[in-house]
Order: sequence, then structure tokens, then C-alpha cells
Amino acid sequence: MAKMKVAIFVESGRIVLDEKPIPDPGPLDALIRITTTTICGTDIHILKGEYPVAKGLTIGHEPVGIIEKLGSQVTGFREGQRVIAGAITPSGTSTACLCGYHSQDGSGTEHGWQAMGGWKFGNTIDGSQAEYLLVPDAMANLAPVPDDLTDEQVLMCPDILSTGFAGAESGRIRIGDSVAVFAQGPIGLCATAGAKLMGATNIITVESVPERMKMSRQMGADQVIDFKKADPVEEIRRLTDGRGVDVAIEALGRQQTFEWALRSLRPGGTLSSLGVYSSDLKIPLDAFSAGLGDNTIVTSLCPGGKERMRRLMSVVASSRVDTRPLVTHRFKLDQIEEAYDLFGHQRDGVLKIAITP
Amino acid sequence: MAKMKVAIFVESGRIVLDEKPIPDPGPLDALIRITTTTICGTDIHILKGEYPVAKGLTIGHEPVGIIEKLGSQVTGFREGQRVIAGAITPSGTSTACLCGYHSQDGSGTEHGWQAMGGWKFGNTIDGSQAEYLLVPDAMANLAPVPDDLTDEQVLMCPDILSTGFAGAESGRIRIGDSVAVFAQGPIGLCATAGAKLMGATNIITVESVPERMKMSRQMGADQVIDFKKADPVEEIRRLTDGRGVDVAIEALGRQQTFEWALRSLRPGGTLSSLGVYSSDLKIPLDAFSAGLGDNTIVTSLCPGGKERMRRLMSVVASSRVDTRPLVTHRFKLDQIEEAYDLFGHQRDGVLKIAITP
Amino acid sequence: MAKMKVAIFVESGRIVLDEKPIPDPGPLDALIRITTTTICGTDIHILKGEYPVAKGLTIGHEPVGIIEKLGSQVTGFREGQRVIAGAITPSGTSTACLCGYHSQDGSGTEHGWQAMGGWKFGNTIDGSQAEYLLVPDAMANLAPVPDDLTDEQVLMCPDILSTGFAGAESGRIRIGDSVAVFAQGPIGLCATAGAKLMGATNIITVESVPERMKMSRQMGADQVIDFKKADPVEEIRRLTDGRGVDVAIEALGRQQTFEWALRSLRPGGTLSSLGVYSSDLKIPLDAFSAGLGDNTIVTSLCPGGKERMRRLMSVVASSRVDTRPLVTHRFKLDQIEEAYDLFGHQRDGVLKIAITP
Amino acid sequence: MAKMKVAIFVESGRIVLDEKPIPDPGPLDALIRITTTTICGTDIHILKGEYPVAKGLTIGHEPVGIIEKLGSQVTGFREGQRVIAGAITPSGTSTACLCGYHSQDGSGTEHGWQAMGGWKFGNTIDGSQAEYLLVPDAMANLAPVPDDLTDEQVLMCPDILSTGFAGAESGRIRIGDSVAVFAQGPIGLCATAGAKLMGATNIITVESVPERMKMSRQMGADQVIDFKKADPVEEIRRLTDGRGVDVAIEALGRQQTFEWALRSLRPGGTLSSLGVYSSDLKIPLDAFSAGLGDNTIVTSLCPGGKERMRRLMSVVASSRVDTRPLVTHRFKLDQIEEAYDLFGHQRDGVLKIAITP
Repeated sequence: MAKMKVAIFVESGRIVLDEKPIPDPGPLDALIRITTTTICGTDIHILKGEYPVAKGLTIGHEPVGIIEKLGSQVTGFREGQRVIAGAITPSGTSTACLCGYHSQDGSGTEHGWQAMGGWKFGNTIDGSQAEYLLVPDAMANLAPVPDDLTDEQVLMCPDILSTGFAGAESGRIRIGDSVAVFAQGPIGLCATAGAKLMGATNIITVESVPERMKMSRQMGADQVIDFKKADPVEEIRRLTDGRGVDVAIEALGRQQTFEWALRSLRPGGTLSSLGVYSSDLKIPLDAFSAGLGDNTIVTSLCPGGKERMRRLMSVVASSRVDTRPLVTHRFKLDQIEEAYDLFGHQRDGVLKIAITP
Repeated sequence: MAKMKVAIFVESGRIVLDEKPIPDPGPLDALIRITTTTICGTDIHILKGEYPVAKGLTIGHEPVGIIEKLGSQVTGFREGQRVIAGAITPSGTSTACLCGYHSQDGSGTEHGWQAMGGWKFGNTIDGSQAEYLLVPDAMANLAPVPDDLTDEQVLMCPDILSTGFAGAESGRIRIGDSVAVFAQGPIGLCATAGAKLMGATNIITVESVPERMKMSRQMGADQVIDFKKADPVEEIRRLTDGRGVDVAIEALGRQQTFEWALRSLRPGGTLSSLGVYSSDLKIPLDAFSAGLGDNTIVTSLCPGGKERMRRLMSVVASSRVDTRPLVTHRFKLDQIEEAYDLFGHQRDGVLKIAITP
Repeated sequence: MAKMKVAIFVESGRIVLDEKPIPDPGPLDALIRITTTTICGTDIHILKGEYPVAKGLTIGHEPVGIIEKLGSQVTGFREGQRVIAGAITPSGTSTACLCGYHSQDGSGTEHGWQAMGGWKFGNTIDGSQAEYLLVPDAMANLAPVPDDLTDEQVLMCPDILSTGFAGAESGRIRIGDSVAVFAQGPIGLCATAGAKLMGATNIITVESVPERMKMSRQMGADQVIDFKKADPVEEIRRLTDGRGVDVAIEALGRQQTFEWALRSLRPGGTLSSLGVYSSDLKIPLDAFSAGLGDNTIVTSLCPGGKERMRRLMSVVASSRVDTRPLVTHRFKLDQIEEAYDLFGHQRDGVLKIAITP
Repeated sequence: MAKMKVAIFVESGRIVLDEKPIPDPGPLDALIRITTTTICGTDIHILKGEYPVAKGLTIGHEPVGIIEKLGSQVTGFREGQRVIAGAITPSGTSTACLCGYHSQDGSGTEHGWQAMGGWKFGNTIDGSQAEYLLVPDAMANLAPVPDDLTDEQVLMCPDILSTGFAGAESGRIRIGDSVAVFAQGPIGLCATAGAKLMGATNIITVESVPERMKMSRQMGADQVIDFKKADPVEEIRRLTDGRGVDVAIEALGRQQTFEWALRSLRPGGTLSSLGVYSSDLKIPLDAFSAGLGDNTIVTSLCPGGKERMRRLMSVVASSRVDTRPLVTHRFKLDQIEEAYDLFGHQRDGVLKIAITP
């Protein structure tokens, strides 16, 4: 049985390169030969043991690759096609999916709902930091890459572009909106791009790392606030003539950014939350108008499925958003441990790392 | 100058009967002679000093009455008409109103938004627990009462029916939804009625006062959980085959009910919050799927304006909802202090008190 | 190879009882032994040759039955379960399905969209007027029937209840709406029930057959207009104080009803169309405010999938809607030709016919 | 009594320069001294007698000017401010306005709804092709112009930018949508800009006038089809891999473009109609999937009100859309008849004409 290299979670603090047999696709699966993948902030949560996964699991959920073998029941694709699959791979047939909540896919459960159940790669099944990847429910999840787009051009589609845009979409941004985005890491930068793409005309971002502040303007920010130099809530009030923003997007997962987001809203405004939190959150009474402000707080898990991927690639193809500058580093799969070290410590201005087997 | 009796806020713990001159309507106002009004839970917050208002303010925001005099610019109405006005009296012309956020009306502010700004009666201007009431922006706010409806039949429209229904509406309840409503006071009971009216088929309410539990079934509950006898979150899981509810409505304004509501949701579910909170809220990390559950938390302040009132009265007229059983007691305006005492201490199975000058 | 009785389309004007081999389920299919089914108005279109299907096709798309055999890849169900499947059986995995347009399922097409593609039974694959039925994409489509509901209680769920409710849902009916429903055949009656279920408080229906007018009130109509006795557009104006209805539902598929529906709307109103038309439609300029009336015209094809079926059955179980009175006649599958004759000629006050193999 | 120059409708075929007294503002009005205005396609309909208005009415509904005098009840503005007002001037207080249908404002009617009732300037009251203009319900309608924007930069906000964007908004365009826009006159060009602003990534426009085809690309078109050289429906199919567009925007008001728009949709797609039609429309049966395609047809009348204007000016200020190239000609008010002649005959590549008193 042929072997492949994989990056596995061993224990808190250790993700290492290892070997596993190349798997054989079941009737509804596809086997993909990975050509490019990357590391996500969530993988760092896994590395640190903050987000628990099974020991020995292959990590990674952002695959670009070539169809190596299709399951017996899979139609509509052919071996040799270059494809991506989303970080979230819905079955399409569970109750949650039929209700449009593909990320909460509960296939396999009694009633068809599972919190975060659509996130399988590198969470509940082997992931993409490997030479080969098994894609479940391939008919719902394989998205052919247009010939004129490179691997790196589409590398952000499986997760951060989908997640970042979801922050804008769940916020229901409208033409002429003022929008604040808190934190300008990879997800926050894509949220900024999404806000611009939906017609926001006053996009205010909050960050303090100089490279990220610069990239923020490149992705669409009209104003960038360095929260180490000014109070972001006061600044946002000032930049919106005292009104506050229509939509605030939280893109870090901390109490501080959540609270800033809430306080920066106009009455009736929406807080769209993308961050993965690691402790309880507090809603301050005054920031919430005691429950009478007609406010909305909405959270989003990265939308997946082949059509979402097609749409995101069409955004890239249209040149309306260019995510290539987000790839600041490149490593071989063999160097994955080194890549985790760099990315985990956010050294050297790293945003995203392209990993090639 | 003729005088009228009014119930005014004197200081924390004291709302008393007093006298004021009968006011004269400005060009856009209408003067209403009150025929019936009532006391709201929010008035008790005011009485206790938990919600601050100016000393000497006339309290009350639920008016039924007769148009006594119209302002010089008011058209479309005639003196002698029996009308109601909502607890919330939007101007219609502020930025917030033009955006559809009538309850956050910012008329008079620089930018047109004011948190809770639509709530004026008994909050920022004199209210309805009086012999006469000045209705601002009368053209947007006077709603004629159909002849075949009594004062008591429409007495719940200005606030609790509008608020309760808003809990169902903001939750975007759909046909076949499972819905949980936490607390079955007057607002919660109307939320239950609203959930039924929108097509929920599995309505589970949580309460412990026997009279309210009974009334809950009358208003539409399919199941009533006594939280003193069973854990409501576990019970709700059981009653939804493990799935959780699509929409949970909080109708009390406490951490406990907020948290139960959050924990009772299915993935992707919506918490629709109606309560007036008096302290910071905590969102438990696990109940929030660490921010990845595609959940929505939405708050609503009582929708107002004449069309909202017309629609609510049409619900009453259609006999689809009957709020008359909610009126458990009747007092004269002269007895208002006694009425506050009874209502504030929730004695004698009180739900709502009809007050007549 | 075992045989089964089936009703097949032979040629325009002829649907006859015949025999076919009992099919074997593929990996994603389920074989159902039909216990009850019915005839739909669409089947009459097929019979008359107005809606073309392949000669020899088994007709029918409203199955109630017992799982006889599951395909090799089907999980989550067990043989012997009593189930229904919707008239529309989406794959869940096509682009259309991933976008939430399950009825326009394009599985098998290049790009994943197919007009009416979700309607397969008795249209593009063999249908339910038979002793056995093959359900495609079983995991997305089998819906277990609660033990306490009879076959006849759930018989309307696969099509007419789902379609009728969709008329109300696509019209986005809100609490307090005025709604007109044009034609009170089985679909229109279910639209009336759906309008009531969503909170309409002034439901006006238009019909002329006495039995249907009577049933209309039973299903929720507040007013029933006999269009042979009064002009329905004028009557609707009168019954809405000159305003027109918020939502008009067309449930026949004719120019006359479409035009009445359009003319009965208030400015900004929505025409929700359910009918299957058989000729071009005309939009009169004046009824359309020359294109400046902020109007919406929306069409709906019966929503399907297991979760839709579960929700509809929960409506039935909750007793909020009772469709049993719609079953006016009962026939054996052996008598299917007789049943078509009765139903096609709308004799004897027929609404729906229960067919049992 | 001081006089002012005005352009009035005399009879079919004649709009002439005349004089009227400068009006005095009522309590809720504002008197504006016009600094720039323009002619709309609708004015040509009026000129030709296709859209009837009262003889002697001052024409025009796109005002930029200076507040000369405020009505006695108007607060929040000051004389001397430079402002615009929308073509549509809602009262904010009618039932239609309270329901969010500001363009169907029925102030003055019994029930508060009036088809197109929000369009007052140059339709039911004197318009903006004059030296002075009376703005009704000034508090809802005056929008101060930021100092750094010129009259010409904001001249398109009152009508064509608002209308064009409404085409995109009513179509509910989403990130990654394919959109077709039929006709690239001023409204169609703004619809194209709106589609891009909302995140469409494949915008296909249909036109044949070379200058407009060129401008179309400038406003955001990815592909421009010359309908004199190729069948637009076939081309759109080809450019969308056979799928059809998600949203088609009609921007002319003819059967041909309406029908093309319908035929270019994917199943479940939305036709967003902006054109002012002058005859009945036909919906071809096949293009409509016999009523089973889950399609939506929606019409929009130019949204107005001060907040809409503020948002549109913020789009202009953000440089996301530049409408200056649309101003192809400039005339004095004295030359208004000449301007109508040029504009009415679409000579000399005219798109929009700036008129200055």
C-alpha cells in the first residue's frame, strides 16, 4: 500500500511530519493529490491544544489539487481535473444542509444537525496538509479551477476568503454603509475586501501591526485606526459624524474586539462575528442599550460547497479582489514544522504560507 | 388654564397622583383625552429607579382615547375619533425612521439616530397615565379604533402585543418551527401568541407561576415547562428530538433566561431578545459554539406608528388572538398608586391592569 | 422478476393501468412499497397532453409508503419504516440545491441548474401511482411518518400542502396582512391555510364552486367572493378600505386570475403565483403602474426534501391545519382509470382522491 | 411678488420657458434656490404626452441648490446650506412610508397608499427646472452636500443613481453573481455601476450605441453585447457557461428588453425592472417555465429621502462610482428648450445635460 507524507497532530504543542497509507475513495468520495495548501489560524489553536482534535489526525483544511481518483458513484467530474474544495464540506443531504445551514451539517446524526459539523478536514477526518486528501461527498464539494488561475490565486478560497466575505454577508452590508472591521489578520483582511465588494463606502479597520495596517488599505480600508494610538470606539464615532457604523465585523475572537465592535455600532446596527473565541464573552449593558437597541449579533462559520468555491474563484478571476499579496511565505510540505513555527509566532510579517508537497 | 390629573414620578419608589395643566397641541401634535390606559413592567423599572426618568414626568405609554384637539398642520384625522397610539411614537422623518428603524428615531439629533429614541411617552415626554395626552407627530401615530372593538380589546396593542409579536418577527419564525419562549409575563404571553400566529408548530414555554402557565396554553403554547420542576434546556432538547429549537425568545431580561435561551437553540438558531436587562450579560463559550455556530442574537424594541397599530388591531378584530384575558384587574386613575402597588408586587395573579380616568 | 401494477401515460388522453418489473434500488435510492397515493391537477395536464412526458412513464408524485429496500450507501433509515417523499426530490448536491433552489435541481447537468429539475416522479422518472416506487437520493428525501398520523393525514404533504404554503411563504406574508387567494382548488385551499398560518388577518378568496367556497372558509378564509356574482377586484378594494391586498396568490394558472391578482394589490404588493400556465401571460400596463409600482411577481414550484416533509407533517400533527376534509373520494389502484375520469372532470365535488394499491 | 423663470409643460410636444411667482414655503416646506438641475428620460415621456401631467406644471425632479428659506416647523437645517433632494420626496408619515414603501407615499389619501405617490416634483407639484423649488416635507428630504463635492458630482443622486442602484438592490445581487443589464442609457449605466458595487463578478450589458457601449465598460461592465450584431440571450448563455444570469436588469421599458431579460435568467433568477413601460407586457410561457421556475420579477421606483441621498453622495465621495462622465452637455435654464430638443432626440452622444439657472 503506497504511502504519503502528512502533517499530524501528536499532542498539545506538536504537529509533526509523518506517513500514512494513501487512502482509497469510497463511493461518494474523491481522492485529490494536493498541489498547494496552507496553514490557518485555527490550526494554531489545534497545535496549542486550545481546540481539541484526535491524536494522529492529519491537519489542514485548505486544499488545492488534482483529482487522482473518483468514487464509484461520483459523476460530473473527471480524473486529472484541477480542483479546490472548501474547508467546510457539506453533504448536501442532511437536514441542516436542506435548511441552508451547510456549515452545521449533521449527516450521520439522528436529527441532521451538528454544531460546526460541516467542518470535517483536519477536524473530524484527515486534512489537507498531506500529499493526498480524501474529499467526502465529492459531488457537492469539488470545484474545478479555471485554467487561467494559479494555485496561489485560489488558495485563499477554501477558508479565509469564504470566511471573510461571510462576515460582510452576514452583516447584510448595503450600498453606502459604514463598516468597521476589528483586527486585520488574514480573515479580517478578507472581511475588509468583502465589505468593499458589497458596496460599503466608509470602511474603517482597527489594527496595530504596520504590515497589516498597510495591507488593510490595499484590501479596501478607507481609514485604518491604530488602536495603540487612539481609542477605536471614539475614532469610529468621529469618522461617522457621531453616528456609529452600520455593521461591525469582529475578526479576532477576543472580548476586547467584540466589545469595541458592539460599542461602535449605531442604534439598530449589526455585529458580525467571525472570531473563534476561547472564553466566555461579556455583553456590557450600556453597549447593548439594555436590550432595546434593535441590535443584531450574528456569527458565521466559513461557507463551503462547490458553488461557494466557484463564486469565490470568479471574484478572483474578475480581479475585483487580489489575495496574492496575502501569501507572504512559501514552504515545502517537508518543512511543515518550520512553517508552523513561523506562522504560530507571527514572525517576519507572515500573513499566509503556501505549502507545496 | 384647565387642569388634569396625572401620575408622576417623584423619586425612586414613588409614583403619585398629581395635577398638571392640560397642554395645548403644537402644529404637528394631537391632544387625546385618555379613556383607558395601563401600567407596564417598564413603569415598575422607573418606579424602582432602575430606569431613570426626569422627576415630575407623567408616566405611562399605552394610551386609548378620544382626539380632543388636532395641531394646525395635522390632516387625515378629526376631533372626536377614538384612537390609540403606540408606546413608540416615531417622527417618520428622521434618518433612523427613513431606514426603517422607527424605534431608534433620532429626530432632534444631529445625525438622526438615537438609541431607544422612538420611546417618548413616559420616558422623555409626558405619558398616558393622565386625563389628557399630547401625541407628537400625530400624522404618523394616531390609529383610529374600529367601532366594534372595545377599549380593553385594543389596550394591549400600544406595547405588549407589539413587543411580543416583534419577538416572533425578529426571530423570523417560519411555518413548522419549534420555538421556546422564556417567561410568560404579559410580554412573553404575547410572544407566544406571535409565534403561533407566524406558524410555529411546536411552541414550548418556560414559566413557574401557575396562572401564567395556564394562560400560556391559552395563548398558544404546546408545551409548558415549569423550570422549578425540570431543567428547561434538557426538556427542550427532549421535546425537539435532541435538535433544539429554531428560535428562542427571551422575555424577562435576566442572565438565566438569556442563557437558557441560547442553550436551547439548534445550530444556526436565533435568540430573539425582548427583555429589558439591568446588568451585563454573559455569553457562555460552549453555548455559543465558540462563535462558529451560525447563531443570531437579535433584540427588539416595541414597533410603533399608526400602521403597526392598525395591523395589531386587525389581529384582534380577526379573533386570531384575544388579549382580553390578560386584563386581570381594573382601577380608576385616582387609584393609580394602589394599582402600582398591586402590579409592582405581582399580587393576586395580576397580568395587566386597565386604568380609566 | 417480480411485477407490480402501475398507472402509465400511453398517449394524449390515455393513462392506463399496466405492469412493470419491481425495480432494484441503486446505491443512493430507496424502494418504497406504496400504501397511499393520489392524483394531482398536474397529472391531468399530463393526461391531456398539455404537459409532455415520455410514453410509458409511470405517473404520480405524491407517495406514502413503507421502505422495502435501501440502497447500499443509504444510512439513517431502516427498512419497514413508514415514510413520505416530496413530489420534488432534490439531490442536495447540485449547484441549484447548494444555492437553496432545490426545485430547480440540476444534478446531471453540466452547470447544475435545470428548470423544474427537482420534479422527477411521474415527470422524468417513474412515479407513485404504482405498487412500488424508487426514491432517488433517498438520504435527502425520505421522511418518516409519526406513528400517530394516518396515511391520509399526511397524503397532502408531498405536493399540495407544500405548494400551497409556498404561495404564502414566497409572498412573504406578515402578521396583519390582507391576502387574496384566486381559485380554491386543492392548491388554493392550502394557500389559504398557509396565509392563515403565517398571520394574515384578512384573507379573501375567490371561487365559484359552492363546495370549494365552503371549504375555503374551513381552511381559513375570512371572506369568500363568488366571482360569478361580483367583480373580485372591486370587492377586494372594498374589503380592504380601498387599499388593496398586501399579497395576492394565484392558484389556477390562467390569464384571468393572474390579472385579477395583479389588480387587487396595493402599491408595492406581491403577486405570488402557483398556477401552471398553458399560454403566454399579459401584464396590463395600468395594473403594473407602468413598471413603477414597486411590485413583485414571484413563482414557486413545490418545495421538497425530507425536512420540508417533516415540517409539514408537524403542522398536521399540531392540528393547526387539517387536510383530511380534502380527501373526498377513495379508490383502489386497480380503479385508477375511473379515478382519473372523476378527477379530470371534477365531478361529484371532488377535491382529492386517495388511491391505495 | 418676485418672479422666477421656470420650464413648464404646455401641451403634448411643448415644454417652454415661462415665469411664475417665487413661492413661499409652508410650515413643513423649504424653498431652494436651484444651482444645477437636469433633464430625465421621464421628462421626455411628459413632453411627448405619453405620461400626463397638468398643463402649466413646472417640470424637473433632480434638484441641487441652496436653502433660501425654511418653513416655520422645519428644524435641523439652516438657510444657506447647499442641498439636494431626491426625485421622490416622501412625507415619512403616511402608511406607505411607515411600511418602508416611501416611493408609494399616500399622504393625503384616506388609507395612506398611492401608486408612485412619492414622485411629486414635476409630476404632481412644481419641479426643479426653475430658479426656485419648494421642497415638501423638508425634514425628510433635504440632504446637505459635502463641501468637497461639486454640483455636477451629486447631480445624478436625486434620480438616476438612486434608480440604477435600486435595480441592483431589488435584484438582491450577491457576491459572485452574474448580472445582465439591458440598455445602457443613464439609468442602465447606473444599474451597471450598482451591480459592480454589490459584488457581481460577471456583468454583461446589452446596448448598440457605441458611446454608451464604451461608457458601459467604464461603469463596470465585464462584457458588452451589441444586440445588433449578436443575439443577446444566446451570448449571455455562452458567457455564463450555459447557466444564465442570476439577475437581469431591464433599463429601457420595452417588451423586447423585458423578454430578453426574462430569457437570460437561470432557473430561480430575478428580473429587476426599472423601465417605464408604455404598453402591456407579455410574459412568454416558455421563458417563464410555465410558472414553475421559482422566478421573481420586481419593479422599483427611484428611492428618495434624505438618508438615501446621503448614502449616494457617500458613494460619490468614496470615488467608488464616478458619474461625472455622464454629464455630456451643459445649458443655461434660458436654453432649456434647446436642451430638450437635443436630449429628446439623443443627438450628439448626449447622456445627461447639466442645466444651470
